[in-house]
Amino acid sequence: MTDLLLRNVRPMGGPASDVLVRGGCIAPPGTDATGAAVEDGHGMLLLPGFVEGHTHLDKTVFHEPDWLVNEVGPRIIDKIDTEREWRARTRHDAGAASLAMARAFLAQGTTRIRSHVDVDTSGGTKHVEHVLATREAMRGLQDIQVVAFPQSGILGRQGTESLLDAALAMGADIVGGLDPCAIERDPVRHLNIVFGLAEKHHKPVDVHLHEQGSMGAFSLELILERTRALSMQGQVVVSHAFCLGDVTERERDVLLAQMAELGVAIATTAPASRPVPLVAPCRAAGVTIFGGNDGIRDTWTPYGSPDMLERAMLIGLRNNFRRDDEIALAFDCVSAAGAKGCGFADYGLHPGARADLVLVEARSLAEAVVVRPPRRMVVSGGRIVARDGVLLA
Amino acid sequence: MTDLLLRNVRPMGGPASDVLVRGGCIAPPGTDATGAAVEDGHGMLLLPGFVEGHTHLDKTVFHEPDWLVNEVGPRIIDKIDTEREWRARTRHDAGAASLAMARAFLAQGTTRIRSHVDVDTSGGTKHVEHVLATREAMRGLQDIQVVAFPQSGILGRQGTESLLDAALAMGADIVGGLDPCAIERDPVRHLNIVFGLAEKHHKPVDVHLHEQGSMGAFSLELILERTRALSMQGQVVVSHAFCLGDVTERERDVLLAQMAELGVAIATTAPASRPVPLVAPCRAAGVTIFGGNDGIRDTWTPYGSPDMLERAMLIGLRNNFRRDDEIALAFDCVSAAGAKGCGFADYGLHPGARADLVLVEARSLAEAVVVRPPRRMVVSGGRIVARDGVLLA
Ligand SMILES: [Zn+2]
Ligand SMILES: [Zn+2]
Repeated sequence: MTDLLLRNVRPMGGPASDVLVRGGCIAPPGTDATGAAVEDGHGMLLLPGFVEGHTHLDKTVFHEPDWLVNEVGPRIIDKIDTEREWRARTRHDAGAASLAMARAFLAQGTTRIRSHVDVDTSGGTKHVEHVLATREAMRGLQDIQVVAFPQSGILGRQGTESLLDAALAMGADIVGGLDPCAIERDPVRHLNIVFGLAEKHHKPVDVHLHEQGSMGAFSLELILERTRALSMQGQVVVSHAFCLGDVTERERDVLLAQMAELGVAIATTAPASRPVPLVAPCRAAGVTIFGGNDGIRDTWTPYGSPDMLERAMLIGLRNNFRRDDEIALAFDCVSAAGAKGCGFADYGLHPGARADLVLVEARSLAEAVVVRPPRRMVVSGGRIVARDGVLLA
Repeated sequence: MTDLLLRNVRPMGGPASDVLVRGGCIAPPGTDATGAAVEDGHGMLLLPGFVEGHTHLDKTVFHEPDWLVNEVGPRIIDKIDTEREWRARTRHDAGAASLAMARAFLAQGTTRIRSHVDVDTSGGTKHVEHVLATREAMRGLQDIQVVAFPQSGILGRQGTESLLDAALAMGADIVGGLDPCAIERDPVRHLNIVFGLAEKHHKPVDVHLHEQGSMGAFSLELILERTRALSMQGQVVVSHAFCLGDVTERERDVLLAQMAELGVAIATTAPASRPVPLVAPCRAAGVTIFGGNDGIRDTWTPYGSPDMLERAMLIGLRNNFRRDDEIALAFDCVSAAGAKGCGFADYGLHPGARADLVLVEARSLAEAVVVRPPRRMVVSGGRIVARDGVLLA
C-alpha cells in the first residue's frame, strides 16, 4: 500500500499540519514522507472515521425504489408485529438492504458500525447470514459488528434461543437482548438465556432496554448483577436505557456508579420526544455513552441518516449543548466514545491508529456538527475510498 | 409578468398535474395556458413556499467569515448579557446579517418570515431600521414581518418603552414581549405596556414566553385576559409557551381551550431538550401551532438552518411523528399553520393563492421532510427566483 500524505489539514479543528499514513496507520510526526502520494487538504478539518454504535442494517428500505408509507400503531409491540408481517409479505432482502446502507455510511465517513440483526422464528438466522455477508463484502473498508438480536423476544417464541445460539456459532459477534420485563414478561429467565449464551460463546452483550422508570431500573440492576457475576467488565452495552432519564437523579447516580465500575456502556439515539440518559451526567460518572441512529428508514421510522454528523447534531440538540466544548462531546459520541463502547480497536488520530479519516470544509469541530458539510474525502485503512460523498470503485 | 406553466408536478405529493401561474397567482384548473413559459416538473413534489414563523434575522452571524466560538453560560440572562456586550464590542451589522439570512431562506424555499428584532437602550431602534431595510430589499420576493422585541426587557432599562413606540411608528409590524415574571419581575406592568402599545398602534402582539409550569401558565393567563379585554382575537402569538409542556394535561387543556376561543396561536421551535407544547393536543383543541428556528447561528446557539424542511423534521422528531399522516402535520407547522398564525394572506396551493412554490425531488411529503432534498426550483409571486439552492440574479 502506497503511503499517503495529507498536506495542510486541521486535526479536530486544531492548527494546520501534515499527516502521513503508512501501512494503513497514522505515522508518527516527523516520519520521512518521501514517495508518498500527496493530497492537498486545503486547510480542511480532519476527523477520525465515524462510529455508528447502534443501527439495524437488516431492516432498512433506504435503497428501495418505493417510499414505504408508515401507518403503524403507537406501541412498541405494534411496530414489532407490523415489521414481522411486512417482512413475510414483501420478502424484504436484508442482504441488499444492509450492503446498500453500509456503503452509504462509508460514503459519509463511517468506518465502524454495530448493527443489531433480527433473529426470530419467522426469518430464522437468515438476516444474520445476510449481514454477515455484508460484513465480508465490506471487510478492509468498514468494520461491522453483528448483534444477534431477538426482536420478537426469546421466551414467547419457542426455538428462538437455539436460533440465537446458531447465529452466534455462525459468526455473530454479540448477544442481543430485549426489554426483559415489558416485552419478555420474565426478566430473570430472559437475562439468564442472554448471559448464558454470552458465557457459552465468549461474546459480549448488548440489550435493548426501552423500559422506563423503576421497571427499567430493575431490569438494569439485573443486567449489572449478571455482568458482575460473570466478570464481564467492559463487555456489556445497554441500548437506550431510557430509565436513566426518568428515575430520580439520586437513583440515576447510584446506577451510573455501578455501570462505571463494571464498564457497562450506554448506546443512545438521543430521541427528542422522551426522557433519555443525558451525556453530561454519564460522563461525569465515568460511564461511556455513545450514539447511533437505531433504524434508518424502516417500518419503525422514516427518519435517520447514514450521516453520523447529523446524529451528533441531534445528540447536541437533545442535550442542549450550545458551547463549542459541549458540541465536542456530541461529536465524541459518534467517534471515540463509540469506538470505546463497542470495542473497536486502534481508533483515533494518534500515531499508530488505523488511518480511518474524514475531510470536511469547516472552520471548527462545532461547525462540522451543526452544518454537516459534504465529505470531501474519506480514507479507510489508509486508502481513499470516497470523494464528495461518492464511493470510489 | 409572463404566465408560468409547471408541467408534471405533484402538489403535496398527490397525483401529477400541470399548474398554471398567472398574474403571480395560481390559476384555476382548466385555464388556457397558451403563451405561458413552460417548466417541466419531471414528476417532482410541488409544495407551497415555506413559512419561518419565529426567527431573529438581526442576530445571526450566518454570513460572517469567522466561526463564532460559543462559551456562554447556562441561564437566559447570561445569553442576553453576552449578546449585548458582543454586539457593542463587534459592532455586528444587523443590516448585512439580516439580508444575507433572508436571501438564504429564499434560496431554500421560504417566502414568508416573522423576525423578532431587538430594541434596547444600547442599540436603540437601529436593528429595526436595518431589518426594515432588508424587508424593503426583499419586497416582492419575500414577506418579512418585523416584531419590535425588547430582548433586554422593558422595565429594567429606562427608555425602552419609547424606543418600542418609535420602532412601531417607523414600521415594525408587531409588538414583542418577554417573560413577564421571570425576566421582567412585574408581569402586569410589562404586559400593560405591551398591549398598550398594540392598542395605540393597532398592531398585533407576539410574546416570548420561556417561563415554565405554573409561573408560565400565570403569565399566559394574563396575556389571555388582555387579548379578551382588547378584543384582539387572532392578533396574539405566544412564542415557545414552554409552560404548556409541563403543567398537568388538565391545566394545559383549560389554557388551550381559552387560546382556541381567542385565536391565540403558538410559535414553537420544538426544542429536543425540554418540555414543550406538543402539536397533537394543540391541534385537537383548535389552537394554531407553527414552527420557527428561533435564532440561527448567533451568540445564543450555533444551530439552526434556513431550511424549513429541517425544522419540520425536528418538529416531527420532537413530537414522535412517524406515520406519514403525522409528518404532514409537521410540514403544516412550517407552511399553512405558519401563514395562519402569523397572518400571511393568500397562502397555499389553491387557485387564487399567491404563487410561492417549491419543487423538490421526493416520492412523498414525508420523504421531503425526512430527507430535505435540494430545492430544484423556488417560485415567488409567480417568478422563478432560485434553482438548485442558488438565487437567480
Ligand atoms: Zn435498536
Ligand atoms: Zn426568539
